Amino acid sequence: MPGAPQPRANVVGVGLIGGSIALALRRAGWHVSGVDHDRSRTDRALELGVIDEVGLDADAELTFVATPVRTVAEAARKALAGTSGLVTDVGSVKAPIVAAVDDPRFVGGHPMAGSEQEGVEGATDDLFEGAVWVLTPTTDTDDDAYARIRSVVSSFGAEVIALPPDRHDELVAVVSHVPHLTAASLMRIADERADEHVALLRLAAGGFRDMTRIASGHPGIWPDICAENRTAIVAGLDRLIAALSEVRDQVSASDREALLADLSRARAARVNLPSRYTRPAELAEVRVPVPDRPGVLADVTTLATELDVNIVDLEIAHSSEGQQGVLIVLIEGTLVERFRGGLLARGYRPSIQHLG
Amino acid sequence: MPGAPQPRANVVGVGLIGGSIALALRRAGWHVSGVDHDRSRTDRALELGVIDEVGLDADAELTFVATPVRTVAEAARKALAGTSGLVTDVGSVKAPIVAAVDDPRFVGGHPMAGSEQEGVEGATDDLFEGAVWVLTPTTDTDDDAYARIRSVVSSFGAEVIALPPDRHDELVAVVSHVPHLTAASLMRIADERADEHVALLRLAAGGFRDMTRIASGHPGIWPDICAENRTAIVAGLDRLIAALSEVRDQVSASDREALLADLSRARAARVNLPSRYTRPAELAEVRVPVPDRPGVLADVTTLATELDVNIVDLEIAHSSEGQQGVLIVLIEGTLVERFRGGLLARGYRPSIQHLG
Repeated sequence: MPGAPQPRANVVGVGLIGGSIALALRRAGWHVSGVDHDRSRTDRALELGVIDEVGLDADAELTFVATPVRTVAEAARKALAGTSGLVTDVGSVKAPIVAAVDDPRFVGGHPMAGSEQEGVEGATDDLFEGAVWVLTPTTDTDDDAYARIRSVVSSFGAEVIALPPDRHDELVAVVSHVPHLTAASLMRIADERADEHVALLRLAAGGFRDMTRIASGHPGIWPDICAENRTAIVAGLDRLIAALSEVRDQVSASDREALLADLSRARAARVNLPSRYTRPAELAEVRVPVPDRPGVLADVTTLATELDVNIVDLEIAHSSEGQQGVLIVLIEGTLVERFRGGLLARGYRPSIQHLG
Repeated sequence: MPGAPQPRANVVGVGLIGGSIALALRRAGWHVSGVDHDRSRTDRALELGVIDEVGLDADAELTFVATPVRTVAEAARKALAGTSGLVTDVGSVKAPIVAAVDDPRFVGGHPMAGSEQEGVEGATDDLFEGAVWVLTPTTDTDDDAYARIRSVVSSFGAEVIALPPDRHDELVAVVSHVPHLTAASLMRIADERADEHVALLRLAAGGFRDMTRIASGHPGIWPDICAENRTAIVAGLDRLIAALSEVRDQVSASDREALLADLSRARAARVNLPSRYTRPAELAEVRVPVPDRPGVLADVTTLATELDVNIVDLEIAHSSEGQQGVLIVLIEGTLVERFRGGLLARGYRPSIQHLG
């Protein structure tokens, strides 16, 4: 007795991230085809068992675009033209891509995961376990497309967070792009001084090593990221320069109290940094009747992000008439009241069921 | 048949570092007395088996001062007055301390080791294994005092590096103090933005966590460090601010080539960061006849640091007449010619013996 047909996916760009997506898809039972502008990379991926086949599968239900950020929009448009399925990407900057790929079958994405490895050789099927994976649906996004992509990405073990594309870009400038450029600057300054004082780098202990680790990553992707997210990165660097200038003046004036206050605030924030995602023990199901029009799902899930309510799972049940649907959202039990408050404020009428 | 009498040491200030020194000393067979301005801490250290006894042992051969940096000079002078032995310290800033404690029995020190633990409860006997431990002898330092302290610190498994006190301060500003203040600034900026955008800190992935880890340390020690090493820290912050301003302008102008060049330089430097110390396989013994006057040992060992020649072990053999001695220095075999060149240039006449 034959089972359901094997779901089919494409991965465009078979590097570390694309290869890891392919492996995670295969682990979940997908048939994965792979494309890369460099044919030797797909051959190698096939050889390593990362993909099942070389080429763009026109029947694929889902295509992941994992090419360098500057080429994502074009690759995504090609995938939309070459398949009838859904398309998502993994670029580190979202607003320019989402603006350039204006199609209800496309949802922008960005897994916040990486590795010190490089290329398909470093790909692993568990790279996204416990990682945050941002999706950037808009009011033009088809709800079912978004729900499906969300579900596949969740199956990789990632925590999915919905954000508007420009908000995503602004926030990753602060927690990823500016820190990366700062690590490189710290390393570069130390290296300059090491030319004079060869002992300097021998003094580089754990703290310095931690702070500069990301500067050892391949620099080739950064000119594109900086170009695509220029405004937010420049704003972030300006804020950091201002903060360091404040600290400089505090040190120069031996202003102990101001220094201690700033360092204490930083410490409290670091200690309270959210830990890696683990599925909450107690869950609640929130059912939200919604009009059957695009953009509702983007609205409800970005609201959840704003309220810091993590969505463990979601599903859309369409009515037979096609006018009204029900959004079924699974969240942590303790967050139900906060989420309900936000939904009511936006005019939704949720019903709640606590699950053991 | 009784053996040699047990060597005796004091540790003044029984926190994480002082406690770890006490444990490392005890592991090496020392009898350790402990002093702290807070009596409950010495009681706790005694209870935990970190020290043998509470109080300052007047017969101690060696006293480690491990109090906060601002109180080191006074504590070191007390230890010099209260014992006939040698005294060293572990303060993160050296020039002001070494200037204030002008005694041939004193050698400044700074182990580049720490832990996310705090207080004597976090002390371990292997905290210094493979860590760099800077000593800052001057021409006023007694050679035998310095050689003895060097030997004890080496017995903890540390790599000992000799630097002039002001050079030490300048270099740690670059690899430790400025990075610490930068980590705190990055964390503080992210925290400010997180007030508006609650999702921001959920996006903080591995790179951001690495870069801000040291900001979770106790901030109480930093106002003193910043006050004591003000000039070098202000200079380091100015350089970092200038470097970040350059990067900001490159991003703003989308200057891909300049960005890539700077990031590539940073990457090469990070990849080439010296790894943790391991004792080299092939050693050579360098014998240097030296006039029996103070300061020679400081001269030879800081020369080794300048040449990036790690000294594995050293010993001073005094002549019976007391006019001339021989310095016996153990170094890595491959570095012999470089070290010989430097010694000859300074007027020494070394002889070399390669040891298998």
